Amino acid sequence: MGRWEPNARERLERSALELFLQQGYESTTAAEIAERAGLAKSTFFRHFTDKREVLFGGQEALNRLFADAITGAPGSATPLDAIRAALESAVRIFSPERHVWVRQRKVVITGNSDLLERELLKLASLTAAMADALRKRGVTDPTASLAAELGRLAFHNAYARWADPANQRDYLEIAHQELDELRAATAALGQEPPAG
Amino acid sequence: MGRWEPNARERLERSALELFLQQGYESTTAAEIAERAGLAKSTFFRHFTDKREVLFGGQEALNRLFADAITGAPGSATPLDAIRAALESAVRIFSPERHVWVRQRKVVITGNSDLLERELLKLASLTAAMADALRKRGVTDPTASLAAELGRLAFHNAYARWADPANQRDYLEIAHQELDELRAATAALGQEPPAG
Repeated sequence: MGRWEPNARERLERSALELFLQQGYESTTAAEIAERAGLAKSTFFRHFTDKREVLFGGQEALNRLFADAITGAPGSATPLDAIRAALESAVRIFSPERHVWVRQRKVVITGNSDLLERELLKLASLTAAMADALRKRGVTDPTASLAAELGRLAFHNAYARWADPANQRDYLEIAHQELDELRAATAALGQEPPAG
Repeated sequence: MGRWEPNARERLERSALELFLQQGYESTTAAEIAERAGLAKSTFFRHFTDKREVLFGGQEALNRLFADAITGAPGSATPLDAIRAALESAVRIFSPERHVWVRQRKVVITGNSDLLERELLKLASLTAAMADALRKRGVTDPTASLAAELGRLAFHNAYARWADPANQRDYLEIAHQELDELRAATAALGQEPPAG
C-alpha cells in the first residue's frame, strides 16, 4: 500500500462517522476507522491526532475563514456588515454535499457530553476570532465583543437549522435570515412587553 | 471530633485556596485540604464531591439567583431591565468580604486549562438560565437569547473588573456601568466606522 492514498482524509471522516453512529463514539478506535476506510493505521495518524479530531479538525480553518472575511470587508462596513461577511464565508463549508456529514456529526456530538463541551469551546474560540478581527478593524469594546456574540448566536442558529434533516434551504439564505432577526431583536431589548 | 463543625464549609474553601496557590491545584488532595482546615476528610466529602467543587460549588445557587431576579422583575420591565435585576442580585455574593476569595479563585482557575473550560461552561449554564427565565416572562427568541448573551458579557466583564486586585469600586457600580456600556454598544453595531 503506497503512502499516498487518494481522498484519504474524506474516507477516514466518512468511516469514522459510520462507526460512531453504529457502535458509539466511545467504543470506536482509530485502528477500526482506518480499517473500515481500507487504509493503514499510520495513515489515520498522518491526518488526525486522535478520533476526536475527526469531528473537530476544521476549527482552525473556520476561525481563519471568519477572521479573513471580517478583515477583508470594505472599510465602510459596519460591525454587523463585517459579521455578515464572516457568516457568508462559511458557505464554502456548508455546501449541499456536506449536509449528510454535518447532520451525522451533530447526532454523534449530541449523544456525548464531552463532545458537547468541546463543541461549546469551539464556538467560544470562533467568537474570540471574530472579536479580534473586529478590533483590528478599529471597532472598540464592548461593541466588538457584542458584535462577535451576535455573530456566534446567528451562526449557531443557522448551523442548527441548516443541519436539520428536514431542511431544504441553503445555508446562505438561513444565515441571512438569522442575522436579520437578531438585528431586529437588538431593538426589542429595551421594549416593554405588550400589556397582558 | 464532633460531626458538626462551625463554619466547616468556609474553612475548607479557605484552606483549599491556600493550598492551590501554594502547591498547585493538581497536586493538592481533598485529604490535605481537610487537614489544613483542621477537619476530618469525611467532613470535606459531606460538603463537596471533589476538590474542583470547592471552586464551582456555587453554580446552581447563582443560576437560581439570576433566574429568580428575572422572574421577580415588574411586569412592565423590558428584557434589559430584567437582565439588570439579575446582575444586581449577585451583589449578595460579590460583597467586599468575598473579594479576596474571588480574586484568589481567579488566579487558580487562570493557571489551569481544565478549570478555564469549566468556568466557560459555568457561564454558558448561567446564560441558559437567564434565557429560560426571560422566555417564561413571555420574551420570544431571538430576543431572549440575545438579552441573555448581553447579560453574560456584562456579568463576565463586571466580575473581572471587580475581582481585579487594584479595584476599589463596589460590584453594583461596576455591573451598572458594564450594562450601560453594552446597551450603548447595541446602537454602534450598525454604525459605519469614522472615516480614517
